[in-house]
This record gives sequence, C-alpha cells and structure tokens, in this order.
Amino acid sequence: MIPTQRVPDVLHRARELVTPALRAAVDRLSPELRPLAAYHLGWVDARGEPVGGDGGKGVRQALAVLSAEAAGAHGSVGTPGAVAVELVHNFSLIHDDVIDEDAERRHRPTVWALFGIGRAVIVGDALLALAQQVVLRPDALQPGGPVVATLPVAGPDPARAARCIADATAAMIAGQALDMAFESVPGVDVAGCLAMEAGKTGALLGCAAAIGAVLAGAEDATVAALDTYGVELGLAFQAVDDLLGIWGDPLTTGKPAFSDLRQHKKTLPVAAALATGGGAAEELAVILAAEHLEEVQIARAAHLVEACGGRSAALDEADRRLASALAALDRTDLVPSAAAELADVARFVVERDF
Amino acid sequence: MIPTQRVPDVLHRARELVTPALRAAVDRLSPELRPLAAYHLGWVDARGEPVGGDGGKGVRQALAVLSAEAAGAHGSVGTPGAVAVELVHNFSLIHDDVIDEDAERRHRPTVWALFGIGRAVIVGDALLALAQQVVLRPDALQPGGPVVATLPVAGPDPARAARCIADATAAMIAGQALDMAFESVPGVDVAGCLAMEAGKTGALLGCAAAIGAVLAGAEDATVAALDTYGVELGLAFQAVDDLLGIWGDPLTTGKPAFSDLRQHKKTLPVAAALATGGGAAEELAVILAAEHLEEVQIARAAHLVEACGGRSAALDEADRRLASALAALDRTDLVPSAAAELADVARFVVERDF
Repeated sequence: MIPTQRVPDVLHRARELVTPALRAAVDRLSPELRPLAAYHLGWVDARGEPVGGDGGKGVRQALAVLSAEAAGAHGSVGTPGAVAVELVHNFSLIHDDVIDEDAERRHRPTVWALFGIGRAVIVGDALLALAQQVVLRPDALQPGGPVVATLPVAGPDPARAARCIADATAAMIAGQALDMAFESVPGVDVAGCLAMEAGKTGALLGCAAAIGAVLAGAEDATVAALDTYGVELGLAFQAVDDLLGIWGDPLTTGKPAFSDLRQHKKTLPVAAALATGGGAAEELAVILAAEHLEEVQIARAAHLVEACGGRSAALDEADRRLASALAALDRTDLVPSAAAELADVARFVVERDF
Repeated sequence: MIPTQRVPDVLHRARELVTPALRAAVDRLSPELRPLAAYHLGWVDARGEPVGGDGGKGVRQALAVLSAEAAGAHGSVGTPGAVAVELVHNFSLIHDDVIDEDAERRHRPTVWALFGIGRAVIVGDALLALAQQVVLRPDALQPGGPVVATLPVAGPDPARAARCIADATAAMIAGQALDMAFESVPGVDVAGCLAMEAGKTGALLGCAAAIGAVLAGAEDATVAALDTYGVELGLAFQAVDDLLGIWGDPLTTGKPAFSDLRQHKKTLPVAAALATGGGAAEELAVILAAEHLEEVQIARAAHLVEACGGRSAALDEADRRLASALAALDRTDLVPSAAAELADVARFVVERDF
C-alpha cells in the first residue's frame, strides 16, 4: 500500500485538528473501556503504555473537515462530525474483527484477540453511543481544562448531524449483515455486491463527506452532492480494498495472503469472475463452495478470479467510481480550494499500488 | 415471578400503542437482520414463523407513555421514545447474552446460541442505530400504508430526545463494563455495586420515564424528576433481580439455580454479604475466588450470602429505592392520574414473589 503520490496535506491538517477532540471524546469513556479504545486506536499498547501509532490514515476525519470548508466554514466546524465518524468507523472495525474472527489488524492483535469477545463487543458499543453524544452535544469534546481555540462550535441543527450519523451507521450495519449473508451463499451477482459495498463502505464515507457541510448549515443540495462524492469514493476505495484483500502483500496489509478468499468473502473481483460463467468460473464456484479450503485451493481460486477478468473488472470499477466521485464535486457551489482538496484525497485513496 | 398484585392496566395500554410502532421500526431493518430481531422480540420462532410470545412485560414502553401523559400530552407523544427505549433495551439484552455466554433467555435459545456470535453482534448493533433513527425521525415509525391515528407526532426538539437516548445508552454500557470488571476482582463494595447498577439498569429506566416528557416539551425540572423516579425504580428493580439471580426459581426465571453466583457476578446481595467481614464472609470470598465452582460450592455460597444478611440487605435496598422513586413523583406538577399510574408500575415491578 505504498502511495503512488504525495500524501495530501489535509490528512495531516485534519489529524492536528481532530485528534485532540477525538482524545477528549475517548476520555469521556469509563475507566474500564478507555484503555481498550485507546489500544484499538493505536494510542497505547496492550498494557496501556503510550505508543506512537497513528491508527490509520484518517481519511474520514479529513473528509469531514474538508466538508465544512467546502461549505464555506472553518474546518473546525466539521470537527464534531469528524470525531463521530471516526468513532463509528472504529466501532465497526472492532465488531467486524469479532464477526470475521480476524486476530490481527495493522500488525497488532485485534481487541477481541487480546481482551476477549465480551470486551470487544462492549467497547464497540461504547464507541457507537459516544459518536451520537459527540454530535448531539459537541461541547463534550472540550477537554477538562480551559477552552481550546480549535474546538468546534455547535452546529445550527444537531439533530440533522445526528441523523446523518445514525442513517450512515444503520446503512453500514445493513451492508455488513449482507456481507455476512454472502459468505453462506454459492454466488453473488455484481449488483448485489455493489449494493453491499455501498452500505458497508460507502454510507459512512458519504456521511464523512457531508457532515461538515451539515454542521456548517449548508443547503440540502450541497450536502447531497458531497454525500454522493463520499459514497462513490467509498465504492472506489472498496474496489481497491477488494483487490488488496486477494492480492495485497501480507507485509503491508497485515493480513494473510488471499485473506478474503480464505473467508469465502464474495467481494467484487469474485462476483465479476463468477459472472463470466465459463469453465474457469465454474471451477472457481466449486472451490469456493467447499467449507474448508486448503492452501493450494486458495491460490488456485485467486488465479481463477484473475483469469476470469475479476481483477481487471474491479480495477475498472474503481476508475469509474473515482470519476463519478470527482464529477459530484463539479455539481455545486463548493468552495473551489476545498473541492480541489477533496479531489486530491479521492485520487490518493484510490491510486494505491498493489 | 408471579406478581403479588394485579398487572397495571398501563402495561396493556402501552403495548397496544407501542407495538405497531415497534413493528414498523423493526420492519425498517434489512431482510438479513429483521428475522433475528423478530426472533429475539418473541414475534417469530427460529424458522421465522409467527408465534404468540410477548417478549417481556414492556415496563420501559409503559414508562415512556406515562411520561408523556404525566407532562400533559397524549400517551402517543411518548411512542417514539418508547420504541427507542425498547430497542436499546433489546440491543443490550442480545449483546449481554453474548458477553455472559448465556444460552437461554425467557426459556428460548438466545440469539447468539441460535444464529452465532457474529449475527448476534450485528443485529444488536442494528437495534442501537435504529433507536437513534426513531427518535431523530419519528415519522419513520409510520408503516408503509396510510397514516395510523395513534402515530406519534415529532417532538418539539428531536435532539433533546436523542441526547436522552444516547446518554442513557452510554451510561448503561459503562455499567455493563463495570459489571464485567467485577467478575475478575475478589470483592466489590456496596457503593461500587450500586454505581454499577445505576448505570446498567437505572440509566435506561430513567430515560424511559423521562423521554415522554421530553417529547412533550416539558421543562427541565419535570424531566429531571421523572428521570430520578426511573433511576431509583431501576435500582429497586435491580435489587429484586439480584435476589432472583441467586434464589429465583429456574422454572420462572429460565436460568439455572444460583445463576449469578455461578458466573461470579458481584451483585448487591454478594457485596452486602462480603461487607459484613466475619468468618462466613471470609469463607464466601474464598469460594467466589475459585475459577471454577462445583455445584456444592455454589449452593454453599448462596447459603453464606443469606447467613451474612446479603438477602435481607438487598430486600431493604429495594424498599428504600422504591420509596425514593415514589417520592420523586411528589416533587413536580405532574398530571396526577399519570403519576398514580407511575406509582402503580413501580410497586408492580418491585413487589414480585421469589
């Protein structure tokens, strides 16, 4: 996952703006839950000692900050939205690791692997509840001491921001449930796969791209265009992630080779390959129908997905969705500099080596 | 759990008012999640066939309806709050069963026992997200067809109702996390135990008793008094549940005898017994410190809790908290008939045989 281009400045800028508020929000958790959240976020190790991890690129928080700027407000207006979106994202990662029985993430043991399933469930729940508190009462982001200059102001309509978070969360959960259902059916068509990914990945990125504008009091059409940008970016991002889930380098993804095939995940390359319907697709379907896969079968399945054009189909999908995300940015009266940065982030997210 | 008195009418009245809205809300879940929620709620069996189960007494929904009435509004004004509180309650039951590894609830297999841990996690998540959607957009409770006369109107401040739900959910989760932490420590004092139970049980009952008034646009003092009533009622309820968790009849509780001792739960009777500090308390502490308990040790522990006065201490606590809940109803300008019904519900909840 070495980027093919410079990391957009906004990722650093958003991190500096949002991290203090995210830490203040996590500090609101009870003493039993705080260390688990801090561990997951890469702030402390298993014993609670501070470490220098950064817990991911922070694309979602950057989108929320740019979203506010695109609507003409200061980036800090998007901060409560950025914090809420990051909390929802991390709630979903913690629970998804339980659901998928993934024992490693970002080269570290997952929360359930280290602390047990029960604690992973409850800390995920806590992050979700906290996300709602943050948008509904953004003053809670203020650390105990004096008011920090970069702290967000309350949006003009906290219920609108809370709806943005709740609706995206519900759509993300529905997408995850669909993904789980896919694991126990023989085949999935491309449309079904894209619907699943629009929920699982697109909804929260759409919310991230829209919530800053919501907090800035933007009009519905502006918010809708930014949401479309985020959903399309999510589909492009997920197409790339699906490629990495099969052909990603274990050393950079932190997951075993052919990870998604191992788990019978019906991602886009697989769905596209199965849709070709020839002999190779039939062989692939037979392999994936087996309850337990040997190493040699997993490697063969990966070869067949590529031979059937599943890899290039996913690459094409990523390109199409990126173009669609960029097109959404042309459709409204967005602040041009922020729109340009949103375009940069989109290209950065999609154009990864693998 | 045979009631010592007549079931209050409001439980039936609230069920008739709230069930259609609760069903309309659950219908908004995706097809993968809906059957799991309907199973948990006692509406369908494991194969999705309708059954006549009622899924519990519905105390929380009744409180929400009475809360609106106590503030001078029609009971239906409390319906979105009632639905949200029931959704949060059921989210917590589904996840708690995963956390506690409880395979049975209400004489049926729990969701995780029937559908797996992953599905139990995701459907719980879905109910929590849905709860927020319901208070933030109460029109979503309207079934697909024509508007039903009993449907709720939007509250004057949806963000205030959503905060009520989010704050109670966060407090409940913190209480559950504290309860989990108690299982791995040798002893817990009574104050710690009550703090845990105020979060785990009191917060959501407080929210249930307050949210109808919030949706009716009541003043803060009225809402606060109703919240106090609910929190105190929750502590009374939990004291009784703690007694049932040790001495409840397995035939009525649906749980094995001495269930809480079996799981090393440091509930109120245990904390009160350990606090006496004599020889019996020391013997009890030694037994509970063992990682695995034999049947004979579990029975001995139950005997020791009673001998140390833990049973009568919990009974006294239930009485005190009931009195405190009833006193809270005297402190404001509540509609007298609704306040009287709230008092009836409180007595009904606490005065159970065991």
